[in-house]
Amino acid sequence: MATKHILIVPGDGIGQEVTAVGKKVLDKIAAKFGHTFTYDEALIGHVAIEATGNPLPDESLEKMRKSDAVLFGAVGHPKYDNDPSAKVRPEQGLLKMRKELGLYANLRPIKLFDELLGASSIKPEILKGADILFFRELTGDIYFGEKGRKNDGDTAYDIAEYSRYEVERIARKAFEAARTRRKKLCSVDKANVIETSRLWREVVQKIAPEYPDVEVEHQFVDATAMLLIKDPRRFDVVVTANLFGDILTDEASQIAGSMGMLASASVGDGTGVYEPIHGSAHDITGKGVANPLASILSAALLLDISFGMKAESELVISAVDQVLKAGFRTRDIADQQTPADKILGTDAMGAEVLKFL
Amino acid sequence: MATKHILIVPGDGIGQEVTAVGKKVLDKIAAKFGHTFTYDEALIGHVAIEATGNPLPDESLEKMRKSDAVLFGAVGHPKYDNDPSAKVRPEQGLLKMRKELGLYANLRPIKLFDELLGASSIKPEILKGADILFFRELTGDIYFGEKGRKNDGDTAYDIAEYSRYEVERIARKAFEAARTRRKKLCSVDKANVIETSRLWREVVQKIAPEYPDVEVEHQFVDATAMLLIKDPRRFDVVVTANLFGDILTDEASQIAGSMGMLASASVGDGTGVYEPIHGSAHDITGKGVANPLASILSAALLLDISFGMKAESELVISAVDQVLKAGFRTRDIADQQTPADKILGTDAMGAEVLKFL
Ligand SMILES: CC(C)[C@H](C(=O)O)[C@@H](O)C(=O)O
Ligand SMILES: CC(C)[C@H](C(=O)O)[C@@H](O)C(=O)O
Repeated sequence: MATKHILIVPGDGIGQEVTAVGKKVLDKIAAKFGHTFTYDEALIGHVAIEATGNPLPDESLEKMRKSDAVLFGAVGHPKYDNDPSAKVRPEQGLLKMRKELGLYANLRPIKLFDELLGASSIKPEILKGADILFFRELTGDIYFGEKGRKNDGDTAYDIAEYSRYEVERIARKAFEAARTRRKKLCSVDKANVIETSRLWREVVQKIAPEYPDVEVEHQFVDATAMLLIKDPRRFDVVVTANLFGDILTDEASQIAGSMGMLASASVGDGTGVYEPIHGSAHDITGKGVANPLASILSAALLLDISFGMKAESELVISAVDQVLKAGFRTRDIADQQTPADKILGTDAMGAEVLKFL
Repeated sequence: MATKHILIVPGDGIGQEVTAVGKKVLDKIAAKFGHTFTYDEALIGHVAIEATGNPLPDESLEKMRKSDAVLFGAVGHPKYDNDPSAKVRPEQGLLKMRKELGLYANLRPIKLFDELLGASSIKPEILKGADILFFRELTGDIYFGEKGRKNDGDTAYDIAEYSRYEVERIARKAFEAARTRRKKLCSVDKANVIETSRLWREVVQKIAPEYPDVEVEHQFVDATAMLLIKDPRRFDVVVTANLFGDILTDEASQIAGSMGMLASASVGDGTGVYEPIHGSAHDITGKGVANPLASILSAALLLDISFGMKAESELVISAVDQVLKAGFRTRDIADQQTPADKILGTDAMGAEVLKFL
């Protein structure tokens, strides 16, 4: 029986709708296991800009630092996407949060629930049994290097940067995770062209002998983008840089049937942040149709990783599994076999999961 | 009846085997249509390093400049991949060729031959009718910016750069191609984070009104990596930066059943270069099993784009189609229904194509 303080940071778009459901799941778990979870909320992204002018107000950052874990939604708004000259952007809040909290490791488990075999655009026989754990570096690379314009604004530049230390700490996390799984690590880079990738490969090669039980391979990012679809089962743990990880994990969401199913954990020096890998999805915001399962599974990761509550976490995952077994689907994971009365909205789907807790 | 000089640049690994077949196809076309094609060969990549110490000897570059078109194979060798500190690399030859010949536009058509519907890991009902033309920018971005080490080698950096001019010329090519197709253009960037992407989006937005008949959308690269697999038919022409194009087109090869089917054209200021999108594939080099169809289809692109020989180009494509209809497959595009006696090696597959010319 533990007492924990959880910060809910819904952010933008469907972030609001799905974190509300994630929170209900945490509540029910606390009640069932006799834990005391207290909650607060904080602003980030477009909603924070609207309220304060700042995509990550100091107050939000303070609250994050003081909480035991953060359940996060999403940030982003089409308004900024279509205005390349916008100086203040929702995503700056997200990036600042990652940097300030030292969240250098983003874990993205890609695992297909058997019931969703049909929901993917990839053939079931290719997918069956696929189970990949991505480690995406989250506080370096071209995301955080100097960027700007020169020649009167006619030339734009971005600097990608990695230090040995940054590569080593994420690689070690990935090696350690591989040890607890199928003992295979794939390190992804573009070492045939990019210098940061050559450093990346050098560091991974250098520490590999310390993990003799883990079989390491190096793949180029282009080949990996192909292999993920061609033969997803060949991967166990994958470790890669920030930008490559962004692209490859979105792609890999198709292995799990839908982006709406994928949770992620961002961890590092301080408070861990748990969030769906999907974005703010303004096209469906406010319609009550967003899939809350990624937020619910993020809550499961939170319980496991930040609180060490294995049984609680597994109960949440198994509740999701049972709801899927019972045939319930949100729109994004429904297929032609799904009867109309089993296609649920955000809250109704959340309610079904709660029943199994 | 035209006279043309074609330079064959096999490069490394299976590049040798597949360009030999591509050349035979060009020969047959010349005979059939009464053209005179003369040939020469040049070195690039690992084989050039071995012979001269230089991944792109001046002599090769001179020959390229003087020829009417280049049929290219592949470059790369595992020796360099596993040695991040190698100073001379096969890929430097490829990049230098692109830069020196001003090959700023890399066209990668992704189209599934109906007979290969079963060969992809993606479901046939998702693929049927997919037809995408990628325009990958090929002489800018992080590939060509300054790169190096600092802090005693402990920090690596790469600079990505784009000028307005560079974005505009590739975007215009893509808009013009969209006009001759389904009139849809998807521009892919990461404008929510990267400054070069913001410039990219700005330029595409700015020239879009000049092509009022083309419907433009902007997508983030991560979302695109997902959408390509989820719903490939939504794309017509896609234009993107060098690095994103590298990753997305390799991924998209799965839409065409196999990487072994995909040809590409690199064009710009001078001689055009035509090559498979697959690499040197040292794991199968010398075994005679490489799929020559990408090289044959590269020859078809060469005839069409560099020589304006539409009928000749279409005959080559239709020969490939008929060989597939006749049930012949190389290993990479065979499926469980393919009888063993229809699975051909490189040369035998080439011979079948020649029969239909
Ligand atoms: C919103 C965006 C800045 C972000 C990223 O690129 O990291 C998102 O795509 C993600 O993957 O969390
Ligand atoms: C070999 C490598 C440098 C090259 C690239 O990244 O451009 C290859 O992957 C390609 O796509 O032509």
